[in-house]
Amino acid sequence: MLLQDGDRIVFAGDSVTDMGSTKPVGEGVFDGLGKGYVRIVDSLLAAFYPERRIRVTNSGLDGNSSKELLTRFHRDVVSLDADWVAICIGINDVWRQFDVPAITSMHVAPTEYRANLEQMITAVKGKVKGVFLLSPYYVEPNRADPMRARMDEYVAICRELSQRHGCIFVNLQEMFEEYCEFRHSSSVAWDRVHPNQVGSTLIAKAFLEACEFEYHHIPV
Amino acid sequence: MLLQDGDRIVFAGDSVTDMGSTKPVGEGVFDGLGKGYVRIVDSLLAAFYPERRIRVTNSGLDGNSSKELLTRFHRDVVSLDADWVAICIGINDVWRQFDVPAITSMHVAPTEYRANLEQMITAVKGKVKGVFLLSPYYVEPNRADPMRARMDEYVAICRELSQRHGCIFVNLQEMFEEYCEFRHSSSVAWDRVHPNQVGSTLIAKAFLEACEFEYHHIPV
Amino acid sequence: MLLQDGDRIVFAGDSVTDMGSTKPVGEGVFDGLGKGYVRIVDSLLAAFYPERRIRVTNSGLDGNSSKELLTRFHRDVVSLDADWVAICIGINDVWRQFDVPAITSMHVAPTEYRANLEQMITAVKGKVKGVFLLSPYYVEPNRADPMRARMDEYVAICRELSQRHGCIFVNLQEMFEEYCEFRHSSSVAWDRVHPNQVGSTLIAKAFLEACEFEYHHIPV
Amino acid sequence: MLLQDGDRIVFAGDSVTDMGSTKPVGEGVFDGLGKGYVRIVDSLLAAFYPERRIRVTNSGLDGNSSKELLTRFHRDVVSLDADWVAICIGINDVWRQFDVPAITSMHVAPTEYRANLEQMITAVKGKVKGVFLLSPYYVEPNRADPMRARMDEYVAICRELSQRHGCIFVNLQEMFEEYCEFRHSSSVAWDRVHPNQVGSTLIAKAFLEACEFEYHHIPV
Amino acid sequence: MLLQDGDRIVFAGDSVTDMGSTKPVGEGVFDGLGKGYVRIVDSLLAAFYPERRIRVTNSGLDGNSSKELLTRFHRDVVSLDADWVAICIGINDVWRQFDVPAITSMHVAPTEYRANLEQMITAVKGKVKGVFLLSPYYVEPNRADPMRARMDEYVAICRELSQRHGCIFVNLQEMFEEYCEFRHSSSVAWDRVHPNQVGSTLIAKAFLEACEFEYHHIPV
Amino acid sequence: MLLQDGDRIVFAGDSVTDMGSTKPVGEGVFDGLGKGYVRIVDSLLAAFYPERRIRVTNSGLDGNSSKELLTRFHRDVVSLDADWVAICIGINDVWRQFDVPAITSMHVAPTEYRANLEQMITAVKGKVKGVFLLSPYYVEPNRADPMRARMDEYVAICRELSQRHGCIFVNLQEMFEEYCEFRHSSSVAWDRVHPNQVGSTLIAKAFLEACEFEYHHIPV
Amino acid sequence: MLLQDGDRIVFAGDSVTDMGSTKPVGEGVFDGLGKGYVRIVDSLLAAFYPERRIRVTNSGLDGNSSKELLTRFHRDVVSLDADWVAICIGINDVWRQFDVPAITSMHVAPTEYRANLEQMITAVKGKVKGVFLLSPYYVEPNRADPMRARMDEYVAICRELSQRHGCIFVNLQEMFEEYCEFRHSSSVAWDRVHPNQVGSTLIAKAFLEACEFEYHHIPV
Amino acid sequence: MLLQDGDRIVFAGDSVTDMGSTKPVGEGVFDGLGKGYVRIVDSLLAAFYPERRIRVTNSGLDGNSSKELLTRFHRDVVSLDADWVAICIGINDVWRQFDVPAITSMHVAPTEYRANLEQMITAVKGKVKGVFLLSPYYVEPNRADPMRARMDEYVAICRELSQRHGCIFVNLQEMFEEYCEFRHSSSVAWDRVHPNQVGSTLIAKAFLEACEFEYHHIPV
Repeated sequence: MLLQDGDRIVFAGDSVTDMGSTKPVGEGVFDGLGKGYVRIVDSLLAAFYPERRIRVTNSGLDGNSSKELLTRFHRDVVSLDADWVAICIGINDVWRQFDVPAITSMHVAPTEYRANLEQMITAVKGKVKGVFLLSPYYVEPNRADPMRARMDEYVAICRELSQRHGCIFVNLQEMFEEYCEFRHSSSVAWDRVHPNQVGSTLIAKAFLEACEFEYHHIPV
Repeated sequence: MLLQDGDRIVFAGDSVTDMGSTKPVGEGVFDGLGKGYVRIVDSLLAAFYPERRIRVTNSGLDGNSSKELLTRFHRDVVSLDADWVAICIGINDVWRQFDVPAITSMHVAPTEYRANLEQMITAVKGKVKGVFLLSPYYVEPNRADPMRARMDEYVAICRELSQRHGCIFVNLQEMFEEYCEFRHSSSVAWDRVHPNQVGSTLIAKAFLEACEFEYHHIPV
Repeated sequence: MLLQDGDRIVFAGDSVTDMGSTKPVGEGVFDGLGKGYVRIVDSLLAAFYPERRIRVTNSGLDGNSSKELLTRFHRDVVSLDADWVAICIGINDVWRQFDVPAITSMHVAPTEYRANLEQMITAVKGKVKGVFLLSPYYVEPNRADPMRARMDEYVAICRELSQRHGCIFVNLQEMFEEYCEFRHSSSVAWDRVHPNQVGSTLIAKAFLEACEFEYHHIPV
Repeated sequence: MLLQDGDRIVFAGDSVTDMGSTKPVGEGVFDGLGKGYVRIVDSLLAAFYPERRIRVTNSGLDGNSSKELLTRFHRDVVSLDADWVAICIGINDVWRQFDVPAITSMHVAPTEYRANLEQMITAVKGKVKGVFLLSPYYVEPNRADPMRARMDEYVAICRELSQRHGCIFVNLQEMFEEYCEFRHSSSVAWDRVHPNQVGSTLIAKAFLEACEFEYHHIPV
Repeated sequence: MLLQDGDRIVFAGDSVTDMGSTKPVGEGVFDGLGKGYVRIVDSLLAAFYPERRIRVTNSGLDGNSSKELLTRFHRDVVSLDADWVAICIGINDVWRQFDVPAITSMHVAPTEYRANLEQMITAVKGKVKGVFLLSPYYVEPNRADPMRARMDEYVAICRELSQRHGCIFVNLQEMFEEYCEFRHSSSVAWDRVHPNQVGSTLIAKAFLEACEFEYHHIPV
Repeated sequence: MLLQDGDRIVFAGDSVTDMGSTKPVGEGVFDGLGKGYVRIVDSLLAAFYPERRIRVTNSGLDGNSSKELLTRFHRDVVSLDADWVAICIGINDVWRQFDVPAITSMHVAPTEYRANLEQMITAVKGKVKGVFLLSPYYVEPNRADPMRARMDEYVAICRELSQRHGCIFVNLQEMFEEYCEFRHSSSVAWDRVHPNQVGSTLIAKAFLEACEFEYHHIPV
Repeated sequence: MLLQDGDRIVFAGDSVTDMGSTKPVGEGVFDGLGKGYVRIVDSLLAAFYPERRIRVTNSGLDGNSSKELLTRFHRDVVSLDADWVAICIGINDVWRQFDVPAITSMHVAPTEYRANLEQMITAVKGKVKGVFLLSPYYVEPNRADPMRARMDEYVAICRELSQRHGCIFVNLQEMFEEYCEFRHSSSVAWDRVHPNQVGSTLIAKAFLEACEFEYHHIPV
Repeated sequence: MLLQDGDRIVFAGDSVTDMGSTKPVGEGVFDGLGKGYVRIVDSLLAAFYPERRIRVTNSGLDGNSSKELLTRFHRDVVSLDADWVAICIGINDVWRQFDVPAITSMHVAPTEYRANLEQMITAVKGKVKGVFLLSPYYVEPNRADPMRARMDEYVAICRELSQRHGCIFVNLQEMFEEYCEFRHSSSVAWDRVHPNQVGSTLIAKAFLEACEFEYHHIPV
C-alpha cells in the first residue's frame, strides 16, 4: 500500500470532501474529519492497517470552486507539510453554470479550471511523495445531458494534468458511471452530486484502490 | 376562468404539494398553505381575481405514495366538500424503487398505482365541479434513464384515467421536459423532484393554464 | 420586455424588499433573494422567459430609511455594476413619525427624503439602462388618515423625481388603493406595510407591468 | 373600588387578553398572567391596593372567536367560581371576514355573535357580583373603513347586551378612537388589533376606570 | 407634571433598570425598553399624557456597580443630550459584599460609591433640566439584617448627594419598607432585589409621583 | 454510620430536593440525582464509604407542597421498598401564603400540613429501618419576619411528629440560622429558599451528621 | 457471500447497534440506520455487491440489556420476517454491575442472560436462514480487570449458545483484544464500550468476515 | 488548615479542572467555577469554614496539554496575584499519544512535560504561600496498560518536581488506584479520565487532605 507508517495525507476539495468537518481544516478523534469519504478512508486505514500511523486531514470546504480552493490552498494544504495530497475539485465550477446560469461571476470556465488546478499541483509537486487527483463528477450516466457533457470536459482536464505532472488519477466520473449499471443515481446521490453514505463509500473505495490498499493485509 | 367566486379547491399530494404546509390540511393567511405551488396559485388568484373569493386548501403530505394518500383521502379531501379537487401523486411510488431498491414494501407498482388513483377519482367524481390530475414527473429529459422511463408509465396511467373519468389532465412531465430545452434540470429541482421557487412557479403556471386563467383579466 | 438576456437588476429598499434575504446583498438558488416580491419577480422571469438569463439581486435591508439606504448605497448598489436599478424606499421615513413620535432622530422629513432619493438616482443615472422608482405606500385607503396623508407627500416626491430624471415610476400607493376596492387592507398586509404573499405578488405584478412583461410570451 | 378584598376576577377573551399567558388558564407570580392588559391590571391592583387580596385569572386564548370561547366557557370561566367575570371577545369574529374572506367557516355573523355572547353572560349572571363586557375594537378612526364599520355593529351588540343584562360596559372602540385624536393607531397597535405595551396599558386603564379604581387611594 | 412635550429622559442603572432592554442603550416600539419599571413609566406617560411626546431611554445594564456605570456613563448617558437623567445604582456595590464575600475586588465601599455617584451627577448637572436619584434598596424590612443595614448607608449617601446637588430624590428603600407593612417581600421580589411586575410597578409609581404625574390629567 | 451496605434510601421533597433530577424518580450515574444535596450526599457516601453499596434515589419534585407530595407518595416513595426514607417538605405550603396571598387554594395551613406529613410517616413507618424528617426552612435569621415566623410553626410540627413517631429530625432551619451568624443568607440562597452549591452542601452535611457519617472512616 | 439478493437482515442490540438510528426500528436512505456498524455494513454491501438488493434494518436501542431487548424482541425483530437476524447484546447486563453497583435491579446475572438470549434465538430459529451472535465485549485487554473478567463469562455463554443452536458466532471481544496489540483501547472507544468510527468499522469488518464477504467480488 | 481567611487560590488545569467553568477564568456565585472538583472544594470550604473568606478561582481549560497551559499561564494564573496555586496538568500530554497516535504534533513527550511544568512552578514560586501539584492520572489499575504505564512516567516527573521545588504533591494516580480496590473505574470515570461527581469528589477530598482540612472544625 502506498501510504506508509508516519505518512500524512491531506484531502482538499469542496462539500463532497468537507461533509461537516472542522473548518477550514479538520482531523482527530471526534467529528473533525466530517462524515464523508475522508472519514471512511481514515476508518478503513485504521481498521485494516493498525500498525501504520497514517495522519488524515480534511481540508474540504462547502461550496468551493477551484477558484476559491486556490485562494486558500497555501494556508490549508501546502503549509501542512503533508506526505500526500489529494485534490477533488471542479464540481461547483460546472454546477453554477447550470443552476444559476445568470450569475456568471460564479462560473469557472475550463481554461480557468485548468490554470487553477495546475497551480495547486505545482504548489505541492516535489514536496510530497505523491498527488492524487480525484476527478469531479456528475452522477448522470446520460452523456448527452448538458451538465454531464460539460463535466466530461473538466474530467478530461483532470486526466490530462495527471499525466503531465505524474499525479495518481482517480476517475470518479467513470466509477459512478459503472456503478449506475447496477443502481440508479438516486441511490447514491439524490442531487447527483452530494453522496449519501453509499456514495461516500464508493469514493473511499476508489481512492483506496488507487492506493493499492489490500483488504487481506495482515498487520504484524 | 374555471374557478368561480365562492369555489373551494383542495390540492392533494406529496411533498411537492405540501412544502411545509399545516399538517395534514392547511389554509389561511399565514404559512398554512406551505411554500410551494399551492401558495403561488393562491397568491396569483388573489392578485389577478380579487373580486372572486376562492378558497384554496393544501392537503399535501411529505413522503406520501398513492397508497398512503388513499388511506387518508376521505378525511383530508372528500370530507372537505370542495368544488374542485386537484391530485398530484405517484412520484414516491416510483422513486422508492430506485433509491431504496431493497425495501420493496415501499414500492408501488403500476397496477396498484392505477387502482389507488382510480379509487380517489371515483370518491369525488360527481360531487365536485371537476377533478384536476397533475401528473407525477421526474425532471430528467433523458427518456432512457430508468427512473424517467418508469415514471412515464405512471404518467401514462394518469393520462388514461383522466380520459376515462373526464378529469382535467395537467402533464407536468411534459411541461418540465419542454422547459429543459432552455434550462438545466438543476435550475428548477436539484434532485429532479423537489422544486425550488422557479420549479413551483412552473407547476402553478401549468395548473393555472389548465384553469384558463387570464393574466389580462380586469376585476370589476 | 425591458429586461434583456444577460441583464442584471438590483433591488434596493427596506424590509418590504428584504424579506429575509441574505444581508446585505443576496441572490442565488437558495433563500438569498428572500421571500418577498424580489423572489416572485425572479421566479416569474425564469418561468416565462427561460431563454433570457436575468440576474436578480436583493439589496433590501430591514428597517432602512432613505437616510440609511443612502449610507450603504455605493457598496450595496452602485458597485454591483447593474444594468437596472429599482429603488423602493421611504416607508420608514414616514412610519417612525407615527409609531415613535418622540424619537425624532428616527424621522426623515420630506426635504431630506427628496435629497436622499435624488442622490441615489444621480449615483446610478447614466451608468444603467434604467432606474425604477417604486413608491413607498401605506395600505390605508382613507386619505384623511394622518400617516396616509403624510405618505402621499413622499409618493409625490417620488413621482416628481421620476419625471425630472427619466425614471420608470411604479406607483404602489395607487396600486394598493385600487386593490382595496375589492379587498380589505388586512388581506394583503396586517400592519398595512409588510405584505403577505398576496401583497408581495401584487408588488411583483406592478413591477413587471412597468417592465412590459408579457405573460403570453413564447420562449424560442 | 368595586373589587373587594378576597375577590376573584376572571378575564375571558382572545389574543388581546391572552398575550402569552399559561394555557388555557393562567395566574400567579411568574408569567402565568401573560404580558398584556391582564397583568397590568394585576400589577396596578397590587401596587395601589396592597391591603386587598384580589385574585386575577387569565382565561384568554389566542385566535378565539366568540364561537370558540363559548365552547370552553364552562371549563375555563364558569367552573372557576369567580366573583367577577370580564369578557372581551369578537375581534376575530370580524377580522376573518376581511383577511380570509374566502374561508367563510371562520366568520361569525352578528346574529351568531349576539347569541354566543348572551349565552356566556347568562352562564355566569347571578353567580357573580358583576360582569364586565369589554367591547371588541379596531384601532381605525375612519368609520368608513369596511372592517371598522363592521366592528361597530359588534360593539353595538355588546352595548345592547350590557344594558339588557346589567353588565358593566367598557367601550374600548370609543376609548381608542379618542386616543387617536392625539396619536396614530400605529403607536398602540401596528396591525390595529394586537396592542403593544401602551395599547395594553390603555385597555387596563379603561377597565380600572370602570372599576372605580382610585389612584389616590391610601391603603390602611 | 415635570416632563414636558419634547423632553428626553435617560434612565441609568443596573439589572433593575435593564430588565432585558437593548444593550447598552435601548428605546422604541419593541422590547428596547426592557420589561421593568422603565417600560411601565413609558407606557403610563403615553397612556395618560398622549399629547406630550416624551422620549424614554433605557441605559441600564445587568450587573453594573457604580464603578462600572461610571466607566460607561459618558457614552451611554451624557452623550445622549437628555433633558432629564435618572440614576438608580448601588445595589451591586453592596450585594457582592454579602453573596461573594471573598471576592473583594467586586465590592464597592461607601467612600468609593459616593465618589462615583457624585462624578455622574456633576457630569450632567447644569446640562439637564433635572437629575433624579433613585436610591438603591434591599426589600428586607428588618433594619438589623446586615445587608439592609449596609444598604442604608448607601441610601443615606444618595440622599445627601441629592440635597447637595439639588437632585430629585426617590427613596425606593423607604417605599418598599412601607409596602412591606401590607405584603411580604417575596410578593414583589423573591431575592429581595429583582422586582417582579408588581415590584417594577411600585418603582414606576414612586418615580412618577416624584414627577408630579397626575392620574387625572386630561389631554387637550 | 447508620446506612449499611445494600441499603436503599429515598429522598422525597420539593424543588430543594429535586434540583433537576429525573422526574418523578431519579437515580444513577448521570444527572438522574439532580444537582442538589441528594447528589452531594450520594457522592460523599461513595467517596468515603466505597465498600458500602448504598442506593440513593431522588423523589423530589419542583413546586410540591405537602398536599401534592402526599398524592404521589405511594407511587414515588412507598412502592420503592426503601430501607430509609427522608422527607423534606413544607416550604411551598408556607411560601404561597406570602408570594401569592390571593391564591388561597395554593396555601396549606398548619393543620393540613401536620395531617399530610403524618400520613406520609405512617405510610412507611415499620416498613423501613428509619425515617428522616428534614425540616422546611426560610434562610431569614430575623424571627420577626412574617414568613420566617410562619415557617417556625411548620418546623415545630415537624419536630413534634418526629418525636411522636421516632423519626430522625434534622432541623435545617436551625442549621441555617447558625450559619447566618457567619455569612449572609444571600451567600447560600438568593431567594432564601433555593440553595446554591454551598447551601446544598450545608443540607447534605446536616443530613450526614444525622446519619453519624464519619469523615475519618477507613474502608476495608 | 452468505447474504443473497432479496435477503433481509435485522440487527438487534443496544447502543452499540443503535447509534442514533430511528426508534425502535430504522432503515432507509437517510439516518434511519444510525451512524454505527449497521450503516457501515449496509454501505459496504451496497458498494461491493450492487447487484444484490439486501435490506438492512436496525433494531438497536440505547441502554438495552438482554432483559429489555427480550421484551420487545417479538415486535422489533421476529415480526419483521427477516431472512437473517444478528444479535449483539449483554454489555449493559454487565456494565451496570460496575458503574452503579448499588442499583442491583439493573444488573442481569449470567443465568438470566443465558435464558434471555436463548429465548431470542429460539424465537427466530427455523424461521430464518441463519442467526448471527455478536458477542458483547469490553475493550480492555487486561483479563484481570473485574469487568473484563465478568464480560468473559457472558462471551462464553454466547459462544456456548451459538454452538448449541447452530448460530454464527462473531467474537467481538477476541477481535478487539487482537486489535489492542496494535493500538490502545482509547483509539477505538474512549469508554471501552461505545465505538468511534474506527471501532464501528472493526465490528462491521468482523461481521462481514463471518458473512464470507469478498472484497474482490466483481458484480455482474 | 493551610488556607487562611483572605487567601486566594487559583486552580490551573485541563478539562478535569474546567468542567464547564467560565472561560478562561471563572469564579463567583453562579456556574463560574464549573461543576467539577473546584466547585466541590469551594463548597466544602464555605460549609465547614464559614468564618474564613477564601477566594477560589478556576483557570482550567478543556483540552489543554502542558504546552497550551504554559502559553496562557501568565495571563490566567500568575497575573491573578494568588496566595496559592494548584496545577493539575499532563493528562492530554499522554492521552493524545494513544487515541490519535498519528497526530504527533499533539503529543507532549516527558522531557517537554517536565520543562513546561517546571516553568510554571518557577513562575509562581516565591510569589505565593505554596504550590500544589495534583498529578495527572489514568483510572486504570492495570500498570501494564500502555497508557497507564506512560502516565506513571509523568506522575513521577510531577513527584520529582514537587520535591525539588517544595511543592505540595497530591498523587491522584495513587488515590484512584487505591479507590479501585473497592469500586471499578467505570463508577468514577467512564473513559478513565473525565470524572463524574463521585470522581470529582474524590479529587476534592484528596486536595483537601493535603490542605489539612478538618471536617470537625468548629467555626468561631
